[in-house]
Amino acid sequence: MYPDAIDSVHVVPTTQLTKAKIISKLHEHEQALRDQKRSRRGRMEWAPLAQSAYAANTVNPIRKIADAVAVAPNPDKASIKMHLGDPSLTGRLPPSPIAVEALEEAVRSHKHDGYGPAVGEEAAREAVARRYSHPAAPITANDVILASGCSHALQMAIEGIANLGDNILIPHPGFPLYSTLCKPLGIEDRAYKLDMKNGGVIDLEHLESLIDEKTKALIVNNPGNPTGVVFSKEHLEDILELAYRYHLVIIADEIYGDLTYDGAVFHPLATLTPKVPIITCDGIAKRWMVPGWRLGWLIVHDRFHVLSDVRKGLVALSQKIVGPCALVQGALPKILAETPDEYFEHNKRVISKNAKIACRVLKGLEGVHCLKPQGAMYMMISIDKILYGDDVQFASSLIQEESVFCLPGTAFSAPGWIRLVITHSEEVTEEALVRIREFCERRMNTCKSPEMFESSDEGCDISNSESDCN
Amino acid sequence: MYPDAIDSVHVVPTTQLTKAKIISKLHEHEQALRDQKRSRRGRMEWAPLAQSAYAANTVNPIRKIADAVAVAPNPDKASIKMHLGDPSLTGRLPPSPIAVEALEEAVRSHKHDGYGPAVGEEAAREAVARRYSHPAAPITANDVILASGCSHALQMAIEGIANLGDNILIPHPGFPLYSTLCKPLGIEDRAYKLDMKNGGVIDLEHLESLIDEKTKALIVNNPGNPTGVVFSKEHLEDILELAYRYHLVIIADEIYGDLTYDGAVFHPLATLTPKVPIITCDGIAKRWMVPGWRLGWLIVHDRFHVLSDVRKGLVALSQKIVGPCALVQGALPKILAETPDEYFEHNKRVISKNAKIACRVLKGLEGVHCLKPQGAMYMMISIDKILYGDDVQFASSLIQEESVFCLPGTAFSAPGWIRLVITHSEEVTEEALVRIREFCERRMNTCKSPEMFESSDEGCDISNSESDCN
Repeated sequence: MYPDAIDSVHVVPTTQLTKAKIISKLHEHEQALRDQKRSRRGRMEWAPLAQSAYAANTVNPIRKIADAVAVAPNPDKASIKMHLGDPSLTGRLPPSPIAVEALEEAVRSHKHDGYGPAVGEEAAREAVARRYSHPAAPITANDVILASGCSHALQMAIEGIANLGDNILIPHPGFPLYSTLCKPLGIEDRAYKLDMKNGGVIDLEHLESLIDEKTKALIVNNPGNPTGVVFSKEHLEDILELAYRYHLVIIADEIYGDLTYDGAVFHPLATLTPKVPIITCDGIAKRWMVPGWRLGWLIVHDRFHVLSDVRKGLVALSQKIVGPCALVQGALPKILAETPDEYFEHNKRVISKNAKIACRVLKGLEGVHCLKPQGAMYMMISIDKILYGDDVQFASSLIQEESVFCLPGTAFSAPGWIRLVITHSEEVTEEALVRIREFCERRMNTCKSPEMFESSDEGCDISNSESDCN
Repeated sequence: MYPDAIDSVHVVPTTQLTKAKIISKLHEHEQALRDQKRSRRGRMEWAPLAQSAYAANTVNPIRKIADAVAVAPNPDKASIKMHLGDPSLTGRLPPSPIAVEALEEAVRSHKHDGYGPAVGEEAAREAVARRYSHPAAPITANDVILASGCSHALQMAIEGIANLGDNILIPHPGFPLYSTLCKPLGIEDRAYKLDMKNGGVIDLEHLESLIDEKTKALIVNNPGNPTGVVFSKEHLEDILELAYRYHLVIIADEIYGDLTYDGAVFHPLATLTPKVPIITCDGIAKRWMVPGWRLGWLIVHDRFHVLSDVRKGLVALSQKIVGPCALVQGALPKILAETPDEYFEHNKRVISKNAKIACRVLKGLEGVHCLKPQGAMYMMISIDKILYGDDVQFASSLIQEESVFCLPGTAFSAPGWIRLVITHSEEVTEEALVRIREFCERRMNTCKSPEMFESSDEGCDISNSESDCN
């Protein structure tokens, strides 16, 4: 109370002040504070309390989009849900029995009922280091911080690096969580373009044009959500070269990791260069197919020992929720070490087959083009707006008429596209795609009135990339 | 880039501007940006990157204190660890077999491998509502948001309510996480005193003196950490009356809930009044003795429908980590419904007996006084500074000489005290307390030189409260 009072005294030129005046001023100030309190006390009714700006700025655009497409499916057709990036939903890609066994052992051991270190149990961090250390990017357990899912790892990475007024470069189309995490702290989510007409790679010229003194980091998501695109080694090297030139730390969102197929090879970004500091975010959600278990991690690849202060910050941030579920931490060493290769191969085969089915069924359909994926569990399909309406309308009508659920690209800053999750059985995928085809053919026939073609330069026709799609 | 450029043009009075001048200004601006980039690119070495202010301000004082007492124990005496508030460490208070069974069932069901709603699975939220709904404070699943432990529930509550420049009233002595959570967002953690000479209740006069227009919430922790004190119904009603007069939302940290003993009764704050909106934070860590499972929740008791905007904010915040581990969510209904009363009674008996052992063994020891606890799993002991040195020195020497670990009160803003965790077996507790007594007696004998008594008005002698302690 007193420091405030003294501040208010300071506006009076000191030459005019006597001790009596100062005391009188202090008394006035105290009276004012009492009055203020009384006025607070005097309120008869509770005014509605506003949420904090921090909470109000925590916005997940998917929720809004999900509301827009919250329509009832066609009661005559069984629902096929291809909108949620949750591989556990379809039953086609269950967790490995090893993972289940590992967790049961952790429960029965009673070694993981208590708090571990906030950064994660030593054995779990060692297991991550063992699996992901690479001659070109050696790491130890000390470089690993466990998180409550990859989302939380991304949160710590962003919050640990950037200040209010800084900017972080994020991909569009891209995972909307990056923006959700940046905005509440006044960090600008500056979006660089993926060239969707050219295989979904990063438009490096555009990316470079966005960099300024306030750019704190570059988020690279590979394999990509929602695109399913896997970047080539050459493309990744170009990205690294750019990051090196501008001294940008990279946050590598590699949650889909080596879940690639049809010949695509995943290169962990950190293994391609000794030049750029990289914070890799990852977890067991999307390759071990247990997103609900909420176990992720970040790995600090500190090339030139420039991240030691950031590392301290990351450790501090991990203390807020005191680590992810200790039982899953206890299971992690076995999960990472013993899940057989065949488990991953099976998952890749299913997703690859589904991608092919989708491309085959939609082939030749006017105004509909697939961006052929080679990784993750998604595929993007561009939808001609003139023929089919915008992507939100498309997704909404598709539910109402065909009971097929997908997310409109708008949710990922990719208007004119829809995203399909391709983790169902091959039969269900075929059925869904046939329904999408029939839906489109019906639209095309009803919409083909001449005036609809007047302004057909809009939309996302990418016929070039279709040739890959078979 | 252009909006910036136009801003910089605006400082020139518009009357002087021609189109040519505007274009020339834009070109200058673009050149400046290019130069800026070039200078960034030109740097030959990476400068060390600073962590964000947000991370730098995320400070857990316990870590600093823990460093200060990181000394080697006496190799001739077995270590007794009474410093960590983790009931799973001693083996004396294991989780109930029901909890283990519930978790194993959740794992085997494969119903909890995927994402649930970010606010938590419906069945888990219903289970919380069923257990904690009360005629005076009825709630439904919609009032419950699950969290990754009670720490995370507190984080959401604080972050959802207060803005930069606001203040939240927190107890001293108290759980340091409240400050850790407030500071990074520029929320002032304004500390009110617990009257440690008067049973550890809130000094309401002091509390009231702290309230101003920027006070957004009052955190009430009952039963208390580190004190082990359980507030009476009358005291809680006085707190509520104060909160009502000033229209303060209460964040009730009730993680220790009905873990009370020796006749003390726990009154959930929300059940005592229809007048004040309350956000209750809780979890399974400290009564079901599984802090590592990381499952907590918050309950929004919205008396006058003044929290509907805050509630939206809390929902948004829950999306950042997409809910706690789904397996534990799956186990929660069984854990809450089926853990037998005898499980809790056993735990209370153990802790009660340990408190009595401590009081008995230390009774009559000069300059050492127990604040008799009736809840939680802690007890506070005041240590005369003149006789024994400050609490950090005391704790450090106690490790070195007696291999007994405790936390100095300074970690909880209670200098002059130490905190013991009383979850060991009765035998181990007795052994630890005997060692503490012997340690004190040794100190007393070596320190009793006359000059040590010169300024003995310091320290925390609370002989009044000792009478309870037997």
